[in-house]
Amino acid sequence: MVSDDATLPLDDRGLAYGDGLFETVLVYDGRPRLWDYHVARLLDGCQRLGIPAPSRATLDRLPRQAGPGLQVLKLVLTRGSGGRGYLPPQTAEPRLRWQCTPFAANERHWRDGIRVRHCALRLAIQPALAGLKHLNRLENVLARREWSDPETIEGLLSDHEGRLVEATCMNVFWCRGERLETPRLERCGVAGTLRQALLERLPISEVDADPRILNEVDALWLGNSVQGIWPVIRLDDTEGCCLAEWKLTDRHRELQNSAQQLLGYPVLPPAGVS
Amino acid sequence: MVSDDATLPLDDRGLAYGDGLFETVLVYDGRPRLWDYHVARLLDGCQRLGIPAPSRATLDRLPRQAGPGLQVLKLVLTRGSGGRGYLPPQTAEPRLRWQCTPFAANERHWRDGIRVRHCALRLAIQPALAGLKHLNRLENVLARREWSDPETIEGLLSDHEGRLVEATCMNVFWCRGERLETPRLERCGVAGTLRQALLERLPISEVDADPRILNEVDALWLGNSVQGIWPVIRLDDTEGCCLAEWKLTDRHRELQNSAQQLLGYPVLPPAGVS
Repeated sequence: MVSDDATLPLDDRGLAYGDGLFETVLVYDGRPRLWDYHVARLLDGCQRLGIPAPSRATLDRLPRQAGPGLQVLKLVLTRGSGGRGYLPPQTAEPRLRWQCTPFAANERHWRDGIRVRHCALRLAIQPALAGLKHLNRLENVLARREWSDPETIEGLLSDHEGRLVEATCMNVFWCRGERLETPRLERCGVAGTLRQALLERLPISEVDADPRILNEVDALWLGNSVQGIWPVIRLDDTEGCCLAEWKLTDRHRELQNSAQQLLGYPVLPPAGVS
Repeated sequence: MVSDDATLPLDDRGLAYGDGLFETVLVYDGRPRLWDYHVARLLDGCQRLGIPAPSRATLDRLPRQAGPGLQVLKLVLTRGSGGRGYLPPQTAEPRLRWQCTPFAANERHWRDGIRVRHCALRLAIQPALAGLKHLNRLENVLARREWSDPETIEGLLSDHEGRLVEATCMNVFWCRGERLETPRLERCGVAGTLRQALLERLPISEVDADPRILNEVDALWLGNSVQGIWPVIRLDDTEGCCLAEWKLTDRHRELQNSAQQLLGYPVLPPAGVS
């Protein structure tokens, strides 16, 4: 692991209040994937939270510090110390911290797909924070604690009013006939950088969806900018009982390979070929 | 300022996800006020988040480290490092950090009351976290950023569905005739220790309330376990325009003096006497 100063003072507002943002970036031989999308989300977060943004040059230096091969760069930007209680200081001095860790993609999940379940926890609706990768992630932690079965790889989250939103650390995509869809994220959820890159390249519609529609979709995928896209082959309810199963098809591979290309991963073979 | 090791590693889950809890405790000559209430809320938080709780003996040692006179002890308990992403480690090793800072109560606000406003931000509804003093406090930070006028001391927060909940760092109390009331906190908000101690001693009803009822109440107060209780003498809307004003009465002093007694502060003189 490579990192800069890997500590923060107790009075840092990132610790005290989760007053900050983070990004998790795939890096290959020092070259970051989807970097413009990560930078754009971070700067959007700075603007919405009122945290002074680091310069592009400062950010651009970080992935270059990563070692050779495949790495994950995690960067954390906090508002720094100071202020009176919740009131931020008039001129914040943000702290930017980072670390790089070697990474290996899960080729089995790419190839064979994964089993997921619905989580019981409902995401709170907070438009002021929706889409951001901020440091207030207790909901994700609580949702991920709902199951320990190692065969279940991810959990789906719906919001307080019953709309499907995301998985604990991935975005959700499905197709119904020819129609590719993903949940709208204006109310809650993290707007993933891979999701954004795919939205700009493919005819994917952002929709409000009842999670029960997933039982009837033709294909279901989860994805993020580090792992790429995993097809879902089984969906369980909150108790682990099967709601739906899917056979892998070339339709699954199409969306996956769009992501593989964006992330610099190899093209996947057709679904019927092992 | 006195503290223990005042840093945390970058991979601490308290920083990464706000995966932890805190308490802010009034201490006089090493003796904590409302200590049993602070410990109870912390242990309730540990139980609900699944964080191993520190022993009572470990906690009891902290306020004794405070210097002489009036101090505020801030303690932070995080789930520590480790786990895979949002999934906590099977056996977490929590980190307990603390610092003590000299404190002086605001006698002017006790005596003369304060001006408050409604905040535009709506608190998200999340029963899984309601009541806890956890480290996910971006909503409070954003709400506190809504005004900079130094004459306005606190901001009132309603939830996503329009119910009055709390102020940015205080609980809310009011009376209508003989009836003392405070918002229910099952959906969001922090269950203050002073609020809890008052609920156990006085006939205060927990209610769901539309914030507009405040324009008609006989008295309005804000309070927490460090500052005690401040009467509200003027309430503004989200733009700073006056909605209601109150003259201080002995009714205000009654609730205030219950808090003064609980916190070891001096009894306040009648409202008409300066």
